[in-house]
Amino acid sequence: MRTQVAIIGGGPSGLLLSQLLLRRGIDTVVLERKSREYVLGRIRAGVLETGMVGLMREAGIADRMDKEGIIHEGTLLSFDDEEFEVNFTEHTGTHVMIYGQTEVTRDLYDAREAAGGKIVYNVENVVINDADTEKPFVTYEVGGKSERIECDFVAGCDGFHGVSRRTIPHDVRRDYEKVYPFGWLGILSETPPVNDELIYANSARGFALCSMRNANLSRYYVQCQLEDSPDDWTDQRFWDELRSRIPAKYADTLVTGPSIEKSIAPLRSFVTEPMRWGRLFLCGDAAHIVPPTGAKGLNTAASDVHYLYQGLMQHYEESDPEGIDRYSERALARAWKAERFSWWMTTLLHRFPDQTAFDLKIQRADLEFLRSNREAQSVMAQNYVGLPY
Amino acid sequence: MRTQVAIIGGGPSGLLLSQLLLRRGIDTVVLERKSREYVLGRIRAGVLETGMVGLMREAGIADRMDKEGIIHEGTLLSFDDEEFEVNFTEHTGTHVMIYGQTEVTRDLYDAREAAGGKIVYNVENVVINDADTEKPFVTYEVGGKSERIECDFVAGCDGFHGVSRRTIPHDVRRDYEKVYPFGWLGILSETPPVNDELIYANSARGFALCSMRNANLSRYYVQCQLEDSPDDWTDQRFWDELRSRIPAKYADTLVTGPSIEKSIAPLRSFVTEPMRWGRLFLCGDAAHIVPPTGAKGLNTAASDVHYLYQGLMQHYEESDPEGIDRYSERALARAWKAERFSWWMTTLLHRFPDQTAFDLKIQRADLEFLRSNREAQSVMAQNYVGLPY
Repeated sequence: MRTQVAIIGGGPSGLLLSQLLLRRGIDTVVLERKSREYVLGRIRAGVLETGMVGLMREAGIADRMDKEGIIHEGTLLSFDDEEFEVNFTEHTGTHVMIYGQTEVTRDLYDAREAAGGKIVYNVENVVINDADTEKPFVTYEVGGKSERIECDFVAGCDGFHGVSRRTIPHDVRRDYEKVYPFGWLGILSETPPVNDELIYANSARGFALCSMRNANLSRYYVQCQLEDSPDDWTDQRFWDELRSRIPAKYADTLVTGPSIEKSIAPLRSFVTEPMRWGRLFLCGDAAHIVPPTGAKGLNTAASDVHYLYQGLMQHYEESDPEGIDRYSERALARAWKAERFSWWMTTLLHRFPDQTAFDLKIQRADLEFLRSNREAQSVMAQNYVGLPY
Repeated sequence: MRTQVAIIGGGPSGLLLSQLLLRRGIDTVVLERKSREYVLGRIRAGVLETGMVGLMREAGIADRMDKEGIIHEGTLLSFDDEEFEVNFTEHTGTHVMIYGQTEVTRDLYDAREAAGGKIVYNVENVVINDADTEKPFVTYEVGGKSERIECDFVAGCDGFHGVSRRTIPHDVRRDYEKVYPFGWLGILSETPPVNDELIYANSARGFALCSMRNANLSRYYVQCQLEDSPDDWTDQRFWDELRSRIPAKYADTLVTGPSIEKSIAPLRSFVTEPMRWGRLFLCGDAAHIVPPTGAKGLNTAASDVHYLYQGLMQHYEESDPEGIDRYSERALARAWKAERFSWWMTTLLHRFPDQTAFDLKIQRADLEFLRSNREAQSVMAQNYVGLPY
């Protein structure tokens, strides 16, 4: 088989890239290790930046998002029983869109299938070959049969545990990492969200986040021990803990119900550099991970897709290598800004086991300053809706 | 002897408070452990916030400052060979004043003496008695003779090592502290400053600061090991090290000369709460210490003086205890903002021995963000010129 761009990974970044390129007549094949059902079963992020929303529209898959997505013009932050809003629209003229990653992926799959896009599911033993030459190719197995795709470029969209990053030799790449000493216990429940906007809560008992997917589907998180198992947490224990971490007025009106999903995720910051090796380009989680506090995971994957899409268009339509040559630099510059913001939000809002009394006071002073200072709120709003590409 | 306010410590906060109160007809006695010459020999800060400048004017001692002080409308920040300016005036409509603490203290002494203010030098064994009663008194020795001052209030302006803070029982106060794993080696030299504005430099070799006292008196600092002694640092070594940490265009034009003072200071963040115990009020370094990076030490002492002066005026002129009762809360709220800013500047600009490669990247991303974002610069400018009292 031959294609122009072999895309490793059928998550949202791979699919979005594929869909964008299709519309410019650039041929792709997407290889996905799992089934479509499996990918759609993943519960992930739900806050889309302005830039991601724009890419969805450019990819022609925004109809359902524009109909069902919920526009958020700000977010609440609380500490102990005090709260304040950071308004996005006031500071940036734009907003974020609440629309689950699962929905984004579903829309992308539907669009790919309607267009007859090539997606191969359940592939095994993917190997990216000769990425540092003019003639890369990808080999894999599916249903016990070996396959080979010749291509011009490979887009590595296969996440943190994928083969793409590991294809880049150790002596040409460098990893940067921070592992946080806690996790997030998240539940999904078919209940109305406790508030119209998200609530990011810093409390003496740790961080909590009140989020949502839609008007009757809530997503709540509490900071937990890394050693915890979801089995340690009955629904009752979860709701009690959540109530203890948010201001009383929300705790008192919280509607609870059975959890339909419950899981614990560790928090990690990770970046590999460079994001390009010859004709292989890393996109999204393959290159960088953020703690979810700033809602930057999917959105930063989208900014990689943007830069790579621009670079590939320049290559195919104008025979200009500039976009491809500067892909790593541009994607990393923006990714580090997202890393910085995610690290800052995480540091601002969580309790750390090694925090001294002084550190806690500084954290509190940071929150007080953010509450009281217009420009500090603007800085947060600009980062939250997404810095310009 | 009897006075209205006994002031422990004849540094700038004690003298400023004394001078301000004098002008409202409130009687004070200042007790200083050292001689006037010793106090004037201390080399300290040189950047005055807008609020401190206002207090100097209100105290009637601003003539020389207004003539000889240098207005700074911004500061440079550099990392490696890159630099950018944060402009204060553009963001805040105001500026800072370069005028050495030594000069402030000299002007205050001159004013106190002209007004016949009572300052007792070389006092020993100062004890603050019965501060938690209606009738506090201070005992001390001078020239081998025991003395006693009856007073309404005691202002503890005697610095970090003074007796005032230690007078507050351990079970009613709490200390918050952070000690930084490096020091500042500073020199004073009779050379023209390398730049009109201060330069805060983050370099691979550590932090450096190019500061000044006047047009022919420069004050330079480099981050050094805590174990270093000034004897380890010849002038030549200092100048070479400074040059290696600032952008080439400044390194190339730096005018060097013999140091007329050379010393190493540790960096510490410290706050004690509360700042009031009965009729004893802590002011300045007696209550809080900041690392010097944000130039907040003298300025935060001045904000304490402001709140205490307002409170004492309310008490004596309106028989209203509100200002005194809320002194600790108000002074601490502003002090913590200064602590936060000083900690942030220190963290942004220094190399820490335990910094990981990820931490360094985040520090760099912070600097890049500050360089590129108008509102982030505004936040820094507002803090640097001083948040409103």
